[in-house]
Amino acid sequence: MLEDEQSSEKRKRMSCGLYTSCPASLKTALQSAFDFGFHFIITQITHPNYSRNLDGPNVPYIIGRTDRILKGNEWNRLIVGELTTSLDVESEVSHIRSNDKKILEQELGFASHLGIPAVLLHLSKPKNVQLSRIINDKLVSGFSYGVWVQIPMVHPSNYSPIAETQHDSWDWWNDFRIHCDYDKRVGLVLELPDVRHVPSVDEIERWIGEPVKALVIQASYFLINQYGKPVLSKVHQEIIKKFMTIDVQYIIHLDIEGDFSLYVKYMNFLGKKLYCCDTMAEFVQGCEDYLQNPLQPLTEHLETNVYEVFEKDQIKYDTYQKAIHDALEHWTGDHVPVVMVVGAGRGPLVQAVLNVCKLLEKEVKVYAVEKNPYAVNTLAERVKREWGSQVTLIREDMRTWQPPELADILVSELLGSFGDNELSPECLDGAQRFLRPETGISIPKQYTSFIAPLQSLKIYNEIRNSRLPDKTLKQCLETPYVVHLANYQQLADSQPLFVFDHPNYTKNGQNPDNTRFKSLRFPPAKKHCVLTGIVGFFEAVLYGEVTLSTNPRTHTPDMVSWFPIVFPLAAPVQVKEGDIIQISFWREESVDKVWYEWCLESPIKTPIMNPNGRSYHIKKH
Amino acid sequence: MLEDEQSSEKRKRMSCGLYTSCPASLKTALQSAFDFGFHFIITQITHPNYSRNLDGPNVPYIIGRTDRILKGNEWNRLIVGELTTSLDVESEVSHIRSNDKKILEQELGFASHLGIPAVLLHLSKPKNVQLSRIINDKLVSGFSYGVWVQIPMVHPSNYSPIAETQHDSWDWWNDFRIHCDYDKRVGLVLELPDVRHVPSVDEIERWIGEPVKALVIQASYFLINQYGKPVLSKVHQEIIKKFMTIDVQYIIHLDIEGDFSLYVKYMNFLGKKLYCCDTMAEFVQGCEDYLQNPLQPLTEHLETNVYEVFEKDQIKYDTYQKAIHDALEHWTGDHVPVVMVVGAGRGPLVQAVLNVCKLLEKEVKVYAVEKNPYAVNTLAERVKREWGSQVTLIREDMRTWQPPELADILVSELLGSFGDNELSPECLDGAQRFLRPETGISIPKQYTSFIAPLQSLKIYNEIRNSRLPDKTLKQCLETPYVVHLANYQQLADSQPLFVFDHPNYTKNGQNPDNTRFKSLRFPPAKKHCVLTGIVGFFEAVLYGEVTLSTNPRTHTPDMVSWFPIVFPLAAPVQVKEGDIIQISFWREESVDKVWYEWCLESPIKTPIMNPNGRSYHIKKH
Repeated sequence: MLEDEQSSEKRKRMSCGLYTSCPASLKTALQSAFDFGFHFIITQITHPNYSRNLDGPNVPYIIGRTDRILKGNEWNRLIVGELTTSLDVESEVSHIRSNDKKILEQELGFASHLGIPAVLLHLSKPKNVQLSRIINDKLVSGFSYGVWVQIPMVHPSNYSPIAETQHDSWDWWNDFRIHCDYDKRVGLVLELPDVRHVPSVDEIERWIGEPVKALVIQASYFLINQYGKPVLSKVHQEIIKKFMTIDVQYIIHLDIEGDFSLYVKYMNFLGKKLYCCDTMAEFVQGCEDYLQNPLQPLTEHLETNVYEVFEKDQIKYDTYQKAIHDALEHWTGDHVPVVMVVGAGRGPLVQAVLNVCKLLEKEVKVYAVEKNPYAVNTLAERVKREWGSQVTLIREDMRTWQPPELADILVSELLGSFGDNELSPECLDGAQRFLRPETGISIPKQYTSFIAPLQSLKIYNEIRNSRLPDKTLKQCLETPYVVHLANYQQLADSQPLFVFDHPNYTKNGQNPDNTRFKSLRFPPAKKHCVLTGIVGFFEAVLYGEVTLSTNPRTHTPDMVSWFPIVFPLAAPVQVKEGDIIQISFWREESVDKVWYEWCLESPIKTPIMNPNGRSYHIKKH
Repeated sequence: MLEDEQSSEKRKRMSCGLYTSCPASLKTALQSAFDFGFHFIITQITHPNYSRNLDGPNVPYIIGRTDRILKGNEWNRLIVGELTTSLDVESEVSHIRSNDKKILEQELGFASHLGIPAVLLHLSKPKNVQLSRIINDKLVSGFSYGVWVQIPMVHPSNYSPIAETQHDSWDWWNDFRIHCDYDKRVGLVLELPDVRHVPSVDEIERWIGEPVKALVIQASYFLINQYGKPVLSKVHQEIIKKFMTIDVQYIIHLDIEGDFSLYVKYMNFLGKKLYCCDTMAEFVQGCEDYLQNPLQPLTEHLETNVYEVFEKDQIKYDTYQKAIHDALEHWTGDHVPVVMVVGAGRGPLVQAVLNVCKLLEKEVKVYAVEKNPYAVNTLAERVKREWGSQVTLIREDMRTWQPPELADILVSELLGSFGDNELSPECLDGAQRFLRPETGISIPKQYTSFIAPLQSLKIYNEIRNSRLPDKTLKQCLETPYVVHLANYQQLADSQPLFVFDHPNYTKNGQNPDNTRFKSLRFPPAKKHCVLTGIVGFFEAVLYGEVTLSTNPRTHTPDMVSWFPIVFPLAAPVQVKEGDIIQISFWREESVDKVWYEWCLESPIKTPIMNPNGRSYHIKKH
């Protein structure tokens, strides 16, 4: 009836650019690139013959092609400008350095005049500090274009028989972008290596944690298949497939003549062939690296939309139903079992209990306890029309409700992305008053949070650039975010952090202690990398062998309800190969709130983040 | 070749909503509204039979329809929720006030739960202070929906034979939104009056200065034409036409049965028939009420895109060509006349001079003086390929250039939206050194800025909500903006402010004094209104009778190069009928900058805005 939701195309759109160094006519070159199916071109914007000398009174008037050959909206959408590659602004010879700097600044000024979306520069040696200064000055003074930094994915020195030093091109890039203060406008263009020199899986993962704008593919890498069409080898396809999780473009570098449209067609074909579109991929489309604030369900009523998203995850509720099924099947009491769903929302777990009753042909008394009056409105309608008197509806907070009888099974879904971060421990501790002692069962029975060190400059920049009306930048940088990570590298396997069990009876009947502390050491870093934060997951035991997990190693297949949680650091930390990352983490509590604090103990000590929960805490009321 | 620029449709898209107070099935009502062609519906979200008593222990569980009847993305796009009209939160009786407040808050909470885009409430009496407090609390605590405030465009008391007081419904609205601190989420829904009681032109103009979200049209206002189809009278069409300059929607209030699709079809027809799509309307589409910073052409090089937009205004260059034509035709010197285009950009005025030479078959020596090296790059190519040696190209600042000869005619296009605000006076004073004394001509010869008092809460909110990294809110509120005004009311005819003449020789040969001051009094206000700022225009004499104007009274037809300039006030000022608005305005200057200061002298005194140019100034270098 209403406008259809956009059907998610089961393919990756492949944006392809054509590299053409200095065509006779730019207009014609652009036209033919479009005819071949390319989306943009990369070309030099100043003519190599012009303006090589900028000193003295007779500076030439002509810098490059006239801007009138293209329309403004062609310049600013379709042209990436390659800066002259022969300039040496790092030269030890002062007048060369000075002259080349002037030419470079003229080219950057001209790029700004044309309004092109990006300039492309090459890093060809380890030291690029002058170049980074020139670029950083322009970025800070508000030039609006992107800066694409091109380097080989694998530096030739790594397989040259005569190279004395083996360079890691990632180091050149890393130094350059550090000098540019990790500006999000500075991106990477990686040259795909030839098939004999492909990088390791670890190396590729590190690249995927970087802001890669494009991959450059030499036309000569294409093989000719039995139908005479250009194709890429399996080895190259594997690399491209890995980069599909982030939004890269493809630059075809043509050094031969031919029907170039076949190259673009082939890339589009790869977009269909290699794109892995499972339930998860479909569900998360469009929310890659998007920061969400964790919910505060104890202080704010959840809304229709949120409940609706929860309820879409069939895998999660099937798993819950399995756990309820096993618990009721094993139940050996001599009365009609009482199942209380605490935090019933709009009723998916109530429905799961009723489904089990039907399957087991067992009589069960069900309570649905919910404090949100607007969700109770929905539950009331379901009791009236679907469930009948088998379900007793209670509009109360589980922590204070005085029930008329004890529960044999307490079912809840209070877990957040970090397990305990939506105060499941505090809520269930409050509810265990009315769980039958000795035999009472809580579903879930146990949950454990996990953490791992994270590199994501993308998330760091998202946080830096988020302008929240009621938070300072410093506060934003010590607040956790729920986020579907795409442009990131997990720097080690996750390790278990905090464990919570339910029910959790204490000796003296006092409230259980839900504060925690742990310090975790991760194995030595395999490569240089940048630590920008901590990523968190959870594993939960619902009942017996029935579990839920968002931890990558044990992730429940196709379950989409939770994205990871990210705890940022105040600034990126450089990690050298062999460095040990050690993280200390606290869960703290006061009368009205719960919060986390965290810090780095190695490779450097950092200030403790979020002291007293000053920037982020979960309110109890 | 490239993606086509979107062809601007020569019609206004008419978004129509259907009012249906309490249908038996919302799903069915929505379906049939869509079948008729409506885009959304307005309906009560809580059932009038439910939850009327919220005190005591047995508060009912059911508030309204269950949220599960629609999907989340139906609730949040297609439903405007009408609040119960019978509530009286202003009651003098404490328990009524208290009970009705609880019910209202429950409805507002339920609206938030459903995620609907807007709630609709009616103002039915002059005093609404309790209601505004309840709404304002919700707005400040972050409820995300809009609040649509419905009132009659003309209050019935104005034509009732028995009414003792004549109410102006604008006052009710104005009080309400003042209490809500002019929040931009609070909008107006105006009930179209019947044909016998239409408002005056002044009254309609005042409404157009308000955030009108929708017009309500009673189905009974439709006449049946000779083909049996519903149509609106000319009188109603005239009103609707006026509202088309702002983005309003139309709510059809049906109290009869019939084929409602004809109403929607007719509204779409009006969108085509009444929409006035002239050159200006086409050019400005999409930039209504969008804030732009005035250019700083003396400190920042203009870019390709900016030149391109300039050059599109054929009317402006035709007018310049006419002026140059007349000047050269009247020129009586005995040598080849020297025409210097100062600030030549990419050459449109050079081209105009050459066109005149050809028309008059006259030999002229042309200099093109331009300081932007990237524009000179373009000019050099035009000299080489189009113009030849007739044009001498000079890459210099006109204020410091040492010319080889004197100019007979100096042509420039340095005017900003306020005339002198891009430092045309300072530049031309600098260039008149090389204008031939006594006989030399400057085109333009003279320009005058104009100002008028402005009501635009839209602009006030745009400024308040603009988050600029390097400016505080206070600074944003004393900075002028160039803006195509749409949702505004000009509160009086504009009056002339500052005049500049060229050439401007002083007695002692010193630099002319370009500082100015004037205080302007406007006629008594015809109606209560809200003063939010000052709008500025200019009129220029190019040569003889040839003029350019952006002043509404004398606007050069179809000229699109300049939008008005707006100087804000720090806060909206309430103006009563009969009040005198008096504005004082300064143009000030120091060695390196020029700036304006302004203040209100009546109806209230305000602090002087932008002292020392602290928040905005035009740099000379």
